Amino acid sequence: MPTEIPHDSVGLVSPQTLRFDTPLTLACGRSLDHYELVIETYGTLNADASNAVLICHALSGHHHVAGYHSMEDRKPGWWDSAVGPGKAIDTNRFFVVALNNLGGCHGSSGPNSLNPATGKPYGPDFPIVTVVDWVHSQARLADKLGIYQWAAVVGGSLGGMQALQWSITYPDRIRHCIVIAAAPKLSTQNIAFNEVARQAISKDPQFHNGHYYEHNQVPKTGLMLARMVGHITYLSEDGMREKFGRELRSGKINFDFNPQFQIESYLQYQGEQFSTAFDANTYLLMTKALDYFDPAADFDNNLTLALSQAQCQFFIASFTTDWRFSPERSREIVDALIDAGKDVCYTEIEAAHGHDAFLIPIPRYMEVFSAYMKRVHTGGGQ
Amino acid sequence: MPTEIPHDSVGLVSPQTLRFDTPLTLACGRSLDHYELVIETYGTLNADASNAVLICHALSGHHHVAGYHSMEDRKPGWWDSAVGPGKAIDTNRFFVVALNNLGGCHGSSGPNSLNPATGKPYGPDFPIVTVVDWVHSQARLADKLGIYQWAAVVGGSLGGMQALQWSITYPDRIRHCIVIAAAPKLSTQNIAFNEVARQAISKDPQFHNGHYYEHNQVPKTGLMLARMVGHITYLSEDGMREKFGRELRSGKINFDFNPQFQIESYLQYQGEQFSTAFDANTYLLMTKALDYFDPAADFDNNLTLALSQAQCQFFIASFTTDWRFSPERSREIVDALIDAGKDVCYTEIEAAHGHDAFLIPIPRYMEVFSAYMKRVHTGGGQ
Repeated sequence: MPTEIPHDSVGLVSPQTLRFDTPLTLACGRSLDHYELVIETYGTLNADASNAVLICHALSGHHHVAGYHSMEDRKPGWWDSAVGPGKAIDTNRFFVVALNNLGGCHGSSGPNSLNPATGKPYGPDFPIVTVVDWVHSQARLADKLGIYQWAAVVGGSLGGMQALQWSITYPDRIRHCIVIAAAPKLSTQNIAFNEVARQAISKDPQFHNGHYYEHNQVPKTGLMLARMVGHITYLSEDGMREKFGRELRSGKINFDFNPQFQIESYLQYQGEQFSTAFDANTYLLMTKALDYFDPAADFDNNLTLALSQAQCQFFIASFTTDWRFSPERSREIVDALIDAGKDVCYTEIEAAHGHDAFLIPIPRYMEVFSAYMKRVHTGGGQ
Repeated sequence: MPTEIPHDSVGLVSPQTLRFDTPLTLACGRSLDHYELVIETYGTLNADASNAVLICHALSGHHHVAGYHSMEDRKPGWWDSAVGPGKAIDTNRFFVVALNNLGGCHGSSGPNSLNPATGKPYGPDFPIVTVVDWVHSQARLADKLGIYQWAAVVGGSLGGMQALQWSITYPDRIRHCIVIAAAPKLSTQNIAFNEVARQAISKDPQFHNGHYYEHNQVPKTGLMLARMVGHITYLSEDGMREKFGRELRSGKINFDFNPQFQIESYLQYQGEQFSTAFDANTYLLMTKALDYFDPAADFDNNLTLALSQAQCQFFIASFTTDWRFSPERSREIVDALIDAGKDVCYTEIEAAHGHDAFLIPIPRYMEVFSAYMKRVHTGGGQ
């Protein structure tokens, strides 16, 4: 809880819900006739609407990126370190738009929303959404906000995949594409870990084939296990060793089946917290969106070809100890961009935090990110 | 099923069960008054009992290392590629002893054995056993077989940890210590993955706090998830990509929650097979034995000091893509042995198979292993 709002914070903010009534046809073939997106905005849109920045969220993210909802909030939004007056995404210059994606569980239409056709929660009947679907829904959002072209679309991890997709799907509507700690598609191992999470959730007896809302239950164990596995892949081996090592909870081994090491209770705690806060059907949807993301697939599996129609400039960043989407995966994007003759900056940041580094204000990372964002012109277009 | 037994096989073999009635005091402070060990032996013990080789198994291994139990067997023992006439562990020269460890589920005393005190399965009341406990039980086994000193103690993964422990606990009873794809202790990340597996099992409603035998149930989902996570850590990212890539099951994405990629159904199949074949309480015990293994802990966390009392020669092997116990972890052992002035051979084998490589007859691996084993003298001691 902030006793006072920090001077470099966007301050107290409120989400707003926007309703869309033009049917959105999805990659799966189904369409959503009506849907809502919950958003937050920071800063002021300038006269020619040329200073808008879209922030796309990752697997468990949402629209609350920066600032506080009330003076009682313990913590600010999830990327407060990067978004605010004078920060990398400088709200003195930019009009920042953040949303909860379709299929999310933080206010946008998703499995836990009421299906107007039935009056009951969608549950597993909410259509599977893809990164391309999200980009289309974000374009509609831009239309509604009076923004034709984003100064930049920015995202880390799954958010970075959305930014990359923007450069392909709407090449004339994005000037800068910021892709942090992402990959051009999931590896076999990435998919394998996602499948463990999905099996943990869907095999939980309290999942009820996704209709748990009607049973007033939550597949807590499944979500806890999913998060525990996920969390291991977000941290680096080095980071875990530095933070927890083989430290024992009680100073000695008790030779029972209870957690003996600090890392065990830490992971359990993280898993339990998450299982009370996140929707299981949304978790399934988000992991499927990750699995299915593969922009090169429509271009003969040629990423260079996929990116050749992009018109924006690119900033790609990776972190040395990230093993979920390692620097090699970012370099696949960079290499394809160079092959396609695009303007690209690439940085590999030394960091012990693994994949989670993209959320952490590592000084070198913030410096490079800020420097790039200063090159993003506003006012009178590029 | 072999239509005929291959010429380099140990042939048809039978396990035998040995009973021990001298109480064995365990690291946890409890003792087992009576216990049984199931073993297999191959080859012939020579006159001065100087040609005996002990093979220690890994997490889900057992005593059936080589040969066939019947002509109907689909597959031979789990390390048939390395054990037999003319193979790396040459049964023309060596008398090979393999056992199922205490706490196992393949015939030795363990959670699914009857507790003589209650007449019911031990279940979760079977004491937690450690690598040191296993080494002590293996020493009793050696006594019973009339073997004072092993020509070699051999193991991969958790089996390698037992071999290493032998060199410290019984320095005069082992001439060669063969440690393959192991580590001197688990990393934080290793423990974290084990804890996911334990949570998956123990939170399964069919686990009944370990008393599932009495309910005629098995925590199948928990075991399946445990094995899926484990399996990912046994394979390398490269190996997974080469074998499965992003290959789809039906040639296209169906946009539902069923497995779409081959890797998903492969992992599910592996998990399901395992869940019908392995005991959940044993899985918990084995992962705890892994977590607690740390021979340096009693020596001021100084591995060199721990190994300084060893008298045997060492052969240490690792595999390039093993990320469960990476080559760096094997080199920790090698460095400590060199510091302690011991005789050590080290090889790092180029292999795409990750941790599982230790079970696979990779030509270079088998050549180096065979060459080392030829140096292990038999007859008249070292």
